[in-house]
Amino acid sequence: TLQHIFKTIFQASLELQEDDNRKALLVSRKKKQENTIVDVKGELLGNGTQTFVMGPCAVESYEQVRVVAQAMKEQGLKLMRGGAFKPRTSPYDFQGLGIEGLKILRQVADEFDLAIISEILNPNDIEMSLEYVDVIQIGARNSQNFDLLREAGKVNKPVLLKRGLAGTIEEFINSAEYIISQGNDQIILCERGIRTYEKATRNTLDISAVPILKKETHLPVVVDVTHSTGRKDLLLPTAKAALAIGADAVMAEVHPDPAVALSDAAQQMNIPEFHKFMAEVKGFRDALAGAQLVR
Amino acid sequence: TLQHIFKTIFQASLELQEDDNRKALLVSRKKKQENTIVDVKGELLGNGTQTFVMGPCAVESYEQVRVVAQAMKEQGLKLMRGGAFKPRTSPYDFQGLGIEGLKILRQVADEFDLAIISEILNPNDIEMSLEYVDVIQIGARNSQNFDLLREAGKVNKPVLLKRGLAGTIEEFINSAEYIISQGNDQIILCERGIRTYEKATRNTLDISAVPILKKETHLPVVVDVTHSTGRKDLLLPTAKAALAIGADAVMAEVHPDPAVALSDAAQQMNIPEFHKFMAEVKGFRDALAGAQLVR
Amino acid sequence: TLQHIFKTIFQASLELQEDDNRKALLVSRKKKQENTIVDVKGELLGNGTQTFVMGPCAVESYEQVRVVAQAMKEQGLKLMRGGAFKPRTSPYDFQGLGIEGLKILRQVADEFDLAIISEILNPNDIEMSLEYVDVIQIGARNSQNFDLLREAGKVNKPVLLKRGLAGTIEEFINSAEYIISQGNDQIILCERGIRTYEKATRNTLDISAVPILKKETHLPVVVDVTHSTGRKDLLLPTAKAALAIGADAVMAEVHPDPAVALSDAAQQMNIPEFHKFMAEVKGFRDALAGAQLVR
Amino acid sequence: TLQHIFKTIFQASLELQEDDNRKALLVSRKKKQENTIVDVKGELLGNGTQTFVMGPCAVESYEQVRVVAQAMKEQGLKLMRGGAFKPRTSPYDFQGLGIEGLKILRQVADEFDLAIISEILNPNDIEMSLEYVDVIQIGARNSQNFDLLREAGKVNKPVLLKRGLAGTIEEFINSAEYIISQGNDQIILCERGIRTYEKATRNTLDISAVPILKKETHLPVVVDVTHSTGRKDLLLPTAKAALAIGADAVMAEVHPDPAVALSDAAQQMNIPEFHKFMAEVKGFRDALAGAQLVR
Repeated sequence: TLQHIFKTIFQASLELQEDDNRKALLVSRKKKQENTIVDVKGELLGNGTQTFVMGPCAVESYEQVRVVAQAMKEQGLKLMRGGAFKPRTSPYDFQGLGIEGLKILRQVADEFDLAIISEILNPNDIEMSLEYVDVIQIGARNSQNFDLLREAGKVNKPVLLKRGLAGTIEEFINSAEYIISQGNDQIILCERGIRTYEKATRNTLDISAVPILKKETHLPVVVDVTHSTGRKDLLLPTAKAALAIGADAVMAEVHPDPAVALSDAAQQMNIPEFHKFMAEVKGFRDALAGAQLVR
Repeated sequence: TLQHIFKTIFQASLELQEDDNRKALLVSRKKKQENTIVDVKGELLGNGTQTFVMGPCAVESYEQVRVVAQAMKEQGLKLMRGGAFKPRTSPYDFQGLGIEGLKILRQVADEFDLAIISEILNPNDIEMSLEYVDVIQIGARNSQNFDLLREAGKVNKPVLLKRGLAGTIEEFINSAEYIISQGNDQIILCERGIRTYEKATRNTLDISAVPILKKETHLPVVVDVTHSTGRKDLLLPTAKAALAIGADAVMAEVHPDPAVALSDAAQQMNIPEFHKFMAEVKGFRDALAGAQLVR
Repeated sequence: TLQHIFKTIFQASLELQEDDNRKALLVSRKKKQENTIVDVKGELLGNGTQTFVMGPCAVESYEQVRVVAQAMKEQGLKLMRGGAFKPRTSPYDFQGLGIEGLKILRQVADEFDLAIISEILNPNDIEMSLEYVDVIQIGARNSQNFDLLREAGKVNKPVLLKRGLAGTIEEFINSAEYIISQGNDQIILCERGIRTYEKATRNTLDISAVPILKKETHLPVVVDVTHSTGRKDLLLPTAKAALAIGADAVMAEVHPDPAVALSDAAQQMNIPEFHKFMAEVKGFRDALAGAQLVR
Repeated sequence: TLQHIFKTIFQASLELQEDDNRKALLVSRKKKQENTIVDVKGELLGNGTQTFVMGPCAVESYEQVRVVAQAMKEQGLKLMRGGAFKPRTSPYDFQGLGIEGLKILRQVADEFDLAIISEILNPNDIEMSLEYVDVIQIGARNSQNFDLLREAGKVNKPVLLKRGLAGTIEEFINSAEYIISQGNDQIILCERGIRTYEKATRNTLDISAVPILKKETHLPVVVDVTHSTGRKDLLLPTAKAALAIGADAVMAEVHPDPAVALSDAAQQMNIPEFHKFMAEVKGFRDALAGAQLVR
């Protein structure tokens, strides 16, 4: 057992080293105390003001995107999400409009002075995407596609990184490190629910991940209430929880006519629902801000 | 395939029947639209005012409980939790003081005019416990101990029912139905985190369960932030999320000297931490109430 | 960091103590090297010969049990399972025949010289059950019902303990320790699948648990292929896997007419399926035994 | 409720269509009844003979690979695995030797007449890899990297596809469909354990997935016992379970000196352990084959 004590001392030294490595992570708050503020065409994430990312699940047409953009403009929103490259479980499901989709997003964004967040799936498309998007999204299925992460780390463009389908917080932080290690520190982390046995929701929103990520890293954190719940009736309550716990932004999906949407029909809000949602969450956000209730 | 259509019609009828059964659940909001308000010695749960349940993990001594009670009294709190019968993974861990613990809780509660919530493990102890506790707690490990649930359903005493370690929301609701089916409708549901692969927290707080339970049932819902996170640094943010999403109460653990606690040392607040926590959560709760932000 | 080294030495001492405690577990193979052999009316579990536990999910009538018993007798089987007290998610589902069910099991068992394994749910029923059953089963939902475990530990009757719905192997072993700590070492451990996100099977059979349990404890291990898969088409392949990996017995459900079964209709074999299953698994078992392929 | 019946009829038609789509999956056994036999330089997978895939976790040097190859040759094995591109959680962990690693594998393979299985991470590397590898491996983290799957589907080279870290069987089958939809039907499916709450093993081996995949698809199925358990003491028992349940091959890791391995040190066998393992599993496999116990 003296042997055991020595073995443990050895292990302690090892852990100290690992600990130093973790301290050395560029995304770590131990490395940089103040918040990283990501500037997306003038909209700031991470500066203490809570904001919203809205838009359709998938880009289907210019008209569809335009209707959503107009509604967002009415609400004074700036950050629009929309999928042009859609990763789908089956190869026979709608895979998105591709570059055509990006062009539509850019055209509408320029028309309404919005910023575009859109997912890129292939390292080869990062360079091309710079012309169209304001934020490169890396999706849950690609959260450990390390070549994609590295490519996104080499460009001068904000990256919204989603947590893996069943990713640990530690893996999530390390995936962000893959990006920052290449030079790009404009990273937004996105909690989007994790896979569990519970079937009442599409995924299980891990709300505790928000304060953990804010504590462990200096990066802004967004909560995607659409993919974490998969239920329209839970968007508002989970958005409030996300704001209360200190998320820098809430993300949700809007579609002019969800019933005919080519993907995720059941979970997207229509335009009147969107306006109702925005009224409530903005009221909530402003009350919290007024009472200085979120740090 | 015509055969398939017929089979499906048959299945539809079956589902309709099951649906009717679900409607027929006595805990269901379909059965009773208005909230059930549970009255615990004058403190109401389910009436729209959000409150707090605090206290030590386990009862260790009269002095220990008294110190916590005094601090709670200073904060104007009424509902005290404390374990006399402790279900522990190992038979060799501290199993609680048993009836002695209940007597201590009762004595201190009477001294400070508090109400006592304490876990009962054995159907045979329900009757005995009525003399000492104001709310019978049924713990996560016993969430499908149906004989215990039925016994608790036969008495005239509120019951706080915890979700199972890896219980589904459907199972949770049915466990409550076991209680109410015996006549006792004074049931408080408690979300306390579920078991997942994530190791950053003790369990994963399923915050979405709160609005789902409020929608599906007419019962008050409490969030136990201590057992769901297992981390003192997450008590405050998760408590805010719980209040924001509409929980009727937040539960957390306090101990005069957590370092020497006989169970769950790492996750209990000490007295100064408790006062700080209460100041923040009450401020938050009151701001929400003032702005009428939680239904 | 010297401080860290010292802290780690302290922790090492603590762990050594815990390790000693684990060594001290009465169920541990560190405590007792040779296999515990459980003798159920002459049928031995744990002696290296692999056997089978078969029978209906729930006892419904004398005739139903008799038909199964006759088929088992034809196959030379001895160990019959059958539920008299059924723990069901909903209070309105069939809860079993209770003592009447136990009486039926006993009557048929005596007629065919079988041994009976049946679940007991309430600590108060342990004493009564001794008259009827040859093995007390403690089910997955009660795997941490510690008072029930302790009662089962006080009697002189074998206990079949199922792993919890989402129980860890460590919890499972400690639950067995609750039984043995009261004096009863006639314990059979039963792996019955764990709760995961995968929906293709009712639970996920954790086949690795078998060699781990055989290594960590000296107790016999049974695999319940019915509850772990919930699919009749997987009973045979998983039974082979269980035998190959060294399980002491395989458990599965048989019903004279599964379509009208009061519980778990879809997953029970009918009599001809049972005979076909037995022919295949016995052939497999005997070939392994002949080639001395399972230790 | 008549409305409900009509809605259900509508849904039934929808499901029928989906069912047809599933039938239409090119990997489905409904589409093609007989087994697909994958020919890897003369070694056949899927023809009923069970085989083995062995090799180091990562390629570290020519000498290291050579020692393993020699041991494999002694055992009459043909299929060697080895990682040249290593996907690692942290960007600062050893990422593999890259093309240098592939060259070493090729050189040794030619020397000993072995076939090489190695993971490719980037769609751009598929073409390049054809010169070096005999089977392209797509790893668990890339199981839904659809562009990579499609690239692998365009070449005339067998592909070994691993199940995702927490992938469902349905997702796994659809990922294979991404490959086959591009023309390449030389696909080997690999069960490698799924992520659960259980910490006794690195992942939880989902042994039931093997018969499900064999039933649903016509593709050969391999079980990776190293990554599913992460424990050397479980390699042999789980390998036996895999063979008993009908896997076409068992995969495990071997390293000349695991203690100094640059990755996964704890779970790789050394050479003497490998010879002992092979003696036992080949004996087991041959006994099963002799008794015609695996279909």
